[in-house]
Amino acid sequence: MATICAETKLFHIERLREFSTLVFLHFGCPKEDAEQAADVLSCADLRGIDSHGVARLHSYFEMLSGGGINPKPQIEILRSTPSTATVDGDNGLGLAVGAKANCIAMDLAEKAGSGWVSVRNTNHFGIAGYYILKALERDLIGWAMTNSTKLVAPLWGAERMLGTNPIAIGFPAKQEPSIVIDMATSAVAYGKVEMARRKGTPIPSGWAINSEGIVTTKPEEMVEAGALLPLGSDREHGGHKGYCLAIMVDMLSCVLSGANWGPFAPPFALRQELEIPTRSVGKGIGHFFGAMRIDGFIDPDAFKTQVDEYIRVFRATKPAPGTNGPLIPGDPERQAEKSRWENGVPLVPAVIEELRDISHKIGIPCD
Amino acid sequence: MATICAETKLFHIERLREFSTLVFLHFGCPKEDAEQAADVLSCADLRGIDSHGVARLHSYFEMLSGGGINPKPQIEILRSTPSTATVDGDNGLGLAVGAKANCIAMDLAEKAGSGWVSVRNTNHFGIAGYYILKALERDLIGWAMTNSTKLVAPLWGAERMLGTNPIAIGFPAKQEPSIVIDMATSAVAYGKVEMARRKGTPIPSGWAINSEGIVTTKPEEMVEAGALLPLGSDREHGGHKGYCLAIMVDMLSCVLSGANWGPFAPPFALRQELEIPTRSVGKGIGHFFGAMRIDGFIDPDAFKTQVDEYIRVFRATKPAPGTNGPLIPGDPERQAEKSRWENGVPLVPAVIEELRDISHKIGIPCD
Repeated sequence: MATICAETKLFHIERLREFSTLVFLHFGCPKEDAEQAADVLSCADLRGIDSHGVARLHSYFEMLSGGGINPKPQIEILRSTPSTATVDGDNGLGLAVGAKANCIAMDLAEKAGSGWVSVRNTNHFGIAGYYILKALERDLIGWAMTNSTKLVAPLWGAERMLGTNPIAIGFPAKQEPSIVIDMATSAVAYGKVEMARRKGTPIPSGWAINSEGIVTTKPEEMVEAGALLPLGSDREHGGHKGYCLAIMVDMLSCVLSGANWGPFAPPFALRQELEIPTRSVGKGIGHFFGAMRIDGFIDPDAFKTQVDEYIRVFRATKPAPGTNGPLIPGDPERQAEKSRWENGVPLVPAVIEELRDISHKIGIPCD
Repeated sequence: MATICAETKLFHIERLREFSTLVFLHFGCPKEDAEQAADVLSCADLRGIDSHGVARLHSYFEMLSGGGINPKPQIEILRSTPSTATVDGDNGLGLAVGAKANCIAMDLAEKAGSGWVSVRNTNHFGIAGYYILKALERDLIGWAMTNSTKLVAPLWGAERMLGTNPIAIGFPAKQEPSIVIDMATSAVAYGKVEMARRKGTPIPSGWAINSEGIVTTKPEEMVEAGALLPLGSDREHGGHKGYCLAIMVDMLSCVLSGANWGPFAPPFALRQELEIPTRSVGKGIGHFFGAMRIDGFIDPDAFKTQVDEYIRVFRATKPAPGTNGPLIPGDPERQAEKSRWENGVPLVPAVIEELRDISHKIGIPCD
């Protein structure tokens, strides 16, 4: 355990993975599911998406402790065609249900050219990008979306009505690294507002509104009773587009599967003082997975050669002043992954404290 | 022809449709294609997307006159699986090729649950939303995307590298009107910058950069040698997300079909002093269509009942100060459609002049 600054400590990814696996096993998750769930969290930690890695383990721990998540789900295909299916996740860990539903989408794609799976009665599935990486391993174009607990206002709304509803999609390259898109449909991640609140620094205009629906630069006003703004922020800058994308994710993930959409998505963590939805309009939250066989459209080698060329052409774009020029989607995550494999994953004291709390409560060593 | 202000004149939609049809017929387009193409333009005019209706007829006219578009394309399915296909549009009118490729996607969906078609060797297809409306008529969830001539800089780039690459998707409701999303992936439409230039008014910061890659509020700097910014505008507000969405559209529409992507998309109108791409990396521009059968996922009546409920819940959102609350995607277009069916389509003098120029050149009356 090396120290990189006064605040964070470095942990080897395999230690974090092992700890997470043991926690899931403790609650009776089957070995395959426990390892699968730990793999999604480790992927987030490696790729620098700190908010979605072991920083969330305590929330899963509480949901499992309180009976909010079923550790031994029997997932079921409710309906299917050659290229589509609806899956009921039996209120299991989204981290395990998501991976299985993603596999169903990929299996359909291998037979029918493409596969599309909408999932209900599930829970938070970690980073959407994880499922894309699995599709890329099978040489498929992968898609993943999910809804989540409400945090975002629709354009011209003054209250939380939507999750940050991420969209992920990936395209394999040949010699270059794959293009991996993974983006929330809000203007900014909630974690950035939370961080500003802890530091006591203002947030940029365009990120959030207060409880009156007025744009605020005070992070505490958003966190306490305000909302994030959708991608585009205001009408003039296309805030209606971010709102549209969030609706699209809700439709595909929830309305198509029979999950709770919009403001009715159940809260993720029990311990937070989160508002309980006024009613239920479905089961659990919802995900949506897609997979497409490249050779269903074009020779895969020709495709990948063009993706390589695309990446090279975009890297050679004339840079804007003060920048090194455009990145390729997935670059920041790949850079984090390289560094964290070598140096370890930095955890802040609050997260370490949470892991110790779990360790103390269920008797699994974390040091 | 009634006058609604000093500048615009009102035309009945059927007159505009008839004129467009005759223009396409003049160039030898088959009757079915000519009517199809006019239908897409009329749909844009009715729905208030003025930039994509008869305002573009002169560009199609020039492309057809100059031999830049093949009036009698033999479109061909190059490759297919049960749920996917690639189509070569034989350099036909995108307005006709797009409609046929969209039909192929819908036909696949009716058999295999979903259908996905990537199209190369085509031209501009009008408004993406048109194809969604066709899918909704067949009770399908519809998707449409296309690339277009470069106008947009990637985040941290200082030059035009991407089209405004729209994404459209639609979901049928039961008693409420359908949800119809149709959005460019740029922060703003080019037409708004062009309009500000004509009026001599500044544009908001976040819309565009100048030729040096610096954010500008002078519309002429964007029009002459600058670029639009992607949705999200800058790093702080998620400009990387708009850039990612534009890449997604390029990948699905062009790299998957073998069309010209990114900065290599051919210019649409010959008469404009547009830069000719330095090289070709495929054939024509590219589109992507998708269709999904609702009953491949869930009972269609249950789905549509939930979409109704979704719409009602979002309309009841607490409004932000100074607004009437959130709209539902498709509201502004439906409002325009109602008004224009009743009152006619307002055309500005410059567009009327272009229609007269066509009329004069090919001897089809427009008055």
